[in-house]
Amino acid sequence: MSDMIRQFHIADPFWKRYEDLLTDVVIPYQEAALRDQIPDAEKSHSIANFKMAADVMARGAEPGEYYGMVFQDSDLAKWIEAAAYSLVQKPDADLEARLDEVIQTIQEAQYPDGYLNTYFTLKRPDKKWTNLREAHELYCAGHMIEAAVAYFEATGKRNLLDVMCRMADHIYERFVVQQMPGYPGHPEIELALMRLYKATGNEKYMELAAHFINVRGVDPEYFFKEAQKNDWCVWSREATDVQYMQAHQPVREMKVATGHAVRAVYLYSGMADLAATTGDASLVEACHRLWDNITNRQMYITGAIGSTVHGEAFTKDYDLPNATAYAETCASIGLIFFARRMLELEPQGRYADVMERALYNTVLAGMQLDGKRFFYVNPLEVLPGISGEVAGYKHDLPQRPKWYGCACCPPNVSRTIASIAKYAWGVKDQTVYAHLFMGGSLDLTEELGARISVTTRYPYEGSVVYELDGAPITLAVRIPEWSGHTKMVVDGMPMVVRPKDGYQYIKGASRVELYLDMEPKRFYANPKIATDSGLVAVQRGPLVYCAEGVDNEEEILSLRLPADGAIHVEDPTNELCGTVKLVAEGYSIQTDDSLYSTSRPKLKPTDIVMVPYYTWGNRGLNQMRVWLPEL
Amino acid sequence: MSDMIRQFHIADPFWKRYEDLLTDVVIPYQEAALRDQIPDAEKSHSIANFKMAADVMARGAEPGEYYGMVFQDSDLAKWIEAAAYSLVQKPDADLEARLDEVIQTIQEAQYPDGYLNTYFTLKRPDKKWTNLREAHELYCAGHMIEAAVAYFEATGKRNLLDVMCRMADHIYERFVVQQMPGYPGHPEIELALMRLYKATGNEKYMELAAHFINVRGVDPEYFFKEAQKNDWCVWSREATDVQYMQAHQPVREMKVATGHAVRAVYLYSGMADLAATTGDASLVEACHRLWDNITNRQMYITGAIGSTVHGEAFTKDYDLPNATAYAETCASIGLIFFARRMLELEPQGRYADVMERALYNTVLAGMQLDGKRFFYVNPLEVLPGISGEVAGYKHDLPQRPKWYGCACCPPNVSRTIASIAKYAWGVKDQTVYAHLFMGGSLDLTEELGARISVTTRYPYEGSVVYELDGAPITLAVRIPEWSGHTKMVVDGMPMVVRPKDGYQYIKGASRVELYLDMEPKRFYANPKIATDSGLVAVQRGPLVYCAEGVDNEEEILSLRLPADGAIHVEDPTNELCGTVKLVAEGYSIQTDDSLYSTSRPKLKPTDIVMVPYYTWGNRGLNQMRVWLPEL
Repeated sequence: MSDMIRQFHIADPFWKRYEDLLTDVVIPYQEAALRDQIPDAEKSHSIANFKMAADVMARGAEPGEYYGMVFQDSDLAKWIEAAAYSLVQKPDADLEARLDEVIQTIQEAQYPDGYLNTYFTLKRPDKKWTNLREAHELYCAGHMIEAAVAYFEATGKRNLLDVMCRMADHIYERFVVQQMPGYPGHPEIELALMRLYKATGNEKYMELAAHFINVRGVDPEYFFKEAQKNDWCVWSREATDVQYMQAHQPVREMKVATGHAVRAVYLYSGMADLAATTGDASLVEACHRLWDNITNRQMYITGAIGSTVHGEAFTKDYDLPNATAYAETCASIGLIFFARRMLELEPQGRYADVMERALYNTVLAGMQLDGKRFFYVNPLEVLPGISGEVAGYKHDLPQRPKWYGCACCPPNVSRTIASIAKYAWGVKDQTVYAHLFMGGSLDLTEELGARISVTTRYPYEGSVVYELDGAPITLAVRIPEWSGHTKMVVDGMPMVVRPKDGYQYIKGASRVELYLDMEPKRFYANPKIATDSGLVAVQRGPLVYCAEGVDNEEEILSLRLPADGAIHVEDPTNELCGTVKLVAEGYSIQTDDSLYSTSRPKLKPTDIVMVPYYTWGNRGLNQMRVWLPEL
Repeated sequence: MSDMIRQFHIADPFWKRYEDLLTDVVIPYQEAALRDQIPDAEKSHSIANFKMAADVMARGAEPGEYYGMVFQDSDLAKWIEAAAYSLVQKPDADLEARLDEVIQTIQEAQYPDGYLNTYFTLKRPDKKWTNLREAHELYCAGHMIEAAVAYFEATGKRNLLDVMCRMADHIYERFVVQQMPGYPGHPEIELALMRLYKATGNEKYMELAAHFINVRGVDPEYFFKEAQKNDWCVWSREATDVQYMQAHQPVREMKVATGHAVRAVYLYSGMADLAATTGDASLVEACHRLWDNITNRQMYITGAIGSTVHGEAFTKDYDLPNATAYAETCASIGLIFFARRMLELEPQGRYADVMERALYNTVLAGMQLDGKRFFYVNPLEVLPGISGEVAGYKHDLPQRPKWYGCACCPPNVSRTIASIAKYAWGVKDQTVYAHLFMGGSLDLTEELGARISVTTRYPYEGSVVYELDGAPITLAVRIPEWSGHTKMVVDGMPMVVRPKDGYQYIKGASRVELYLDMEPKRFYANPKIATDSGLVAVQRGPLVYCAEGVDNEEEILSLRLPADGAIHVEDPTNELCGTVKLVAEGYSIQTDDSLYSTSRPKLKPTDIVMVPYYTWGNRGLNQMRVWLPEL
């Protein structure tokens, strides 16, 4: 995968705002959080943990008191990754200096043999590698490897890369050379090692990734045995649910996505990465099965996955409740990772369709528009007084908190947005794939001797204009499944749109105009999703819409959307960072106060105002609903 | 409340079947369960506990090993109550002899000072009365008092009544005379003491009931303090949620139903009993508020209450999910208790309407049609593969188990059905109230010098014919709210139906014919119930209907019920004990396999077969749905 991070300069109104928000607000805010400088927010202590570990390793100090989750190191890693990418869009010597300083601390915290993990250094130096089930050592290593690769890609500096190569070598020595049993309780290092392999060209990192993928679930009892041997634990001495950790069977035998959703999609991403690189047929087949199961059976219309709070997990096909959804932000980020890697395996528009759905809806909803608050959980229905309060709904907060004790999602959103270019573009041989629609300039002079300039106001307008110069190339433009009537004009001539596997291939053109169908569309769920029975959702372009209380006079739960009413597209509003609202001709039902009645509710014509789902919860405590009853 | 148990002889097809089932199957089956004679069912050990306690108290034996929940004594008590009532409908000398034998054992297990509870006798003789929060001593006493009153009413025998008067005296001595602090963690004894007062005329039992009602929640910290003092516990040393036990405020200040639903309605029943007897205005007001909150905000259309598994509890207004409902059978029984006592307070049809709704739907659904299996939890939607299996749905079993370790519901259903006459009828001065519609003969010769014979095939047919002879009386016939077009013929002449507070009063007639509106009716939920948005339920007479997979060719979740289609009433079927099915003109929606689609689902005309909710789950593992999307 050519990562496109340095080649693509974003310059459209939608994503430029996000990039500026990242560099100006989010990354500084998250740095302050990691440095414990945000008043009234949960403490992170992540940088402090590294400092204390460095004091122990480099200066022989007594260990200070570790604070945070066992995987607190990964929060810093994700932030470094985001900050590294932001340097490409907006160079910042001060930030880079602070990054180097933090990396210096990380380097000092490393053991001479390459081992690196502040939880174990400070808290349990004699228990390294004894609890792969819970202790997230390989997970934290994976995230720091990703950070190292990102910082190397962004700046060309090897400081963190060298640190993490030593850690990867240490892991290789233990698990491959010495053949110690075990594999990560929380997958992540697999995809990270594939990135390290691509960044360094060192095949042993791919070998190590393949090792963890190949041994996983071959002994489904492994975690039970490990737990029995231990005299300590992070949460529980008992290993119970191996499905939760995708350790129930060898990965090549997996047919349905199970267990903790983030672990699952991180694992599948690593598998897809390896499959795309090696062409391993049985692994490709497993990836296809898992992809199909998730996207055809277990995904919300917002691209969210993992419907239950119990284990933050996948459940069963078609079990997708709206008001009690878990739908973790990180899980949709993982789904984007998986999708992007499937695109490397085979350029098919369906992968990019899902990637776009998850990105523009759940992932963007994960962050407040001002970049200062975050959702971990992304319900599709919010009932004030119930959501976030009543047993069973307590995880579904109606407003974004500032930070979390378990702060995986905020920095994960940052690093994803900061590296959005790598999801937007792909290059294979002489073909440049436009997976997502973003304005800006793509400089492929080095790779193909070509440059592409893109002009668009997507996702609010449907025209995307590509101007190409330099050597002739093939441009493969994704035709989204949702775009019913797509038009194209190539070098001034209308072109019949006949996509192959979701992409329209245009060879040697110098100007490609794409006109996507931006009519608001009604979406119907498969009838097997019980909670969506009789309901309809509205989507325009890639954006799923929702009705919020603040825009509607009538009680949200009383709104009814007729099958044949018009849905008007409003002019961009000043509210919600210039979003485009929809106004649907609809009804509200008028009833008396009775709980059940034989009187058919009366209908009152009502304009139903809808806003993009990613903007919900930005205007105070509020009712919200994606799926509305159809009349 | 004149209990009508001995005066009313049931003789209609519907309830006679239930009475026969009780005497021939359920009561013997439950006796066998209590004697641990059912293979593969969870052990009860309830009678064995009493035998061991009797051995300790009467024969100085060493205590054997207590088994079961802390409130296991109450299972035997509820069964005695049911068996006692059954003797009235069908005398059975063997059963009565076995009851006397069991009562002898209970008597032997009593302490000389009147104390009775096998858990404490066998397990913690030094800890009596130290843990009112968890240990259910007053609750078990309450149930055994109810059993004693029932056996006395049914047979005139005082054996168990005397035992329980001694226990009540013991409690009175402790809590009223000695003024020891505390009140029951699980209300129940309040309503039982009111029954004991009415059976014996001894006012100190009413005084004791009033005491527990009056002190409740006055010190909301009571349970915390008690927990702090203790060095033992049943489940947890920590008292946490006082709302769960309705101990958060004095009962006269309560505005909404909160906490464990069974505890709540048992308490409110005792309050209504006391209020009806004393006329205490502030207590009457509290009962009104709580009744209104439950029935206008927190009740399923099936008369089920307590929507969450977390604490088996009420949650917030309008939070009534269908597939994850808790909706405990015992809670609806308690709601019937509450309703019946509100009717004593003031004869208003709305109380009987709810009583009927809870009885004919949730309570009857609690028992398999063959009387051998029981539901504890009564969801309104069952999704095979998800219900009973997936986290969050595990309590919603799709089929009835044989018995439960916590077996509160099965004997509670038995005693309620066995004493159904007391819910059907009421007498106030010279007026006889027909609250429910049941065929049979009511002999009030002693009370009013009158007899009433009732002929009906209710709930499947809407005609109810009352023939009265003897002294002229006023017959007050409930006109159910669901009956849109009710007709009456009195002594051969049509009568204009103009009910007062839900009752039509007819004075001095000798023949009253009632023709209820048995057209199937569509019911709509208040739009604030999010989970019922756009859905419609069908009810005929008092019976809520549901669609089950076994009757329908098309997937239940694909069914759509148009607002204007006919709903045909079938002839009684041989299946399901002669129930009447409905066949609605409807549609099934036909879609491809995609998860979300812009194609509006195609409609295929389909007959939707529906059966009464109380019959669901009698034909194997099956899909089920009460609320269907309306077209």
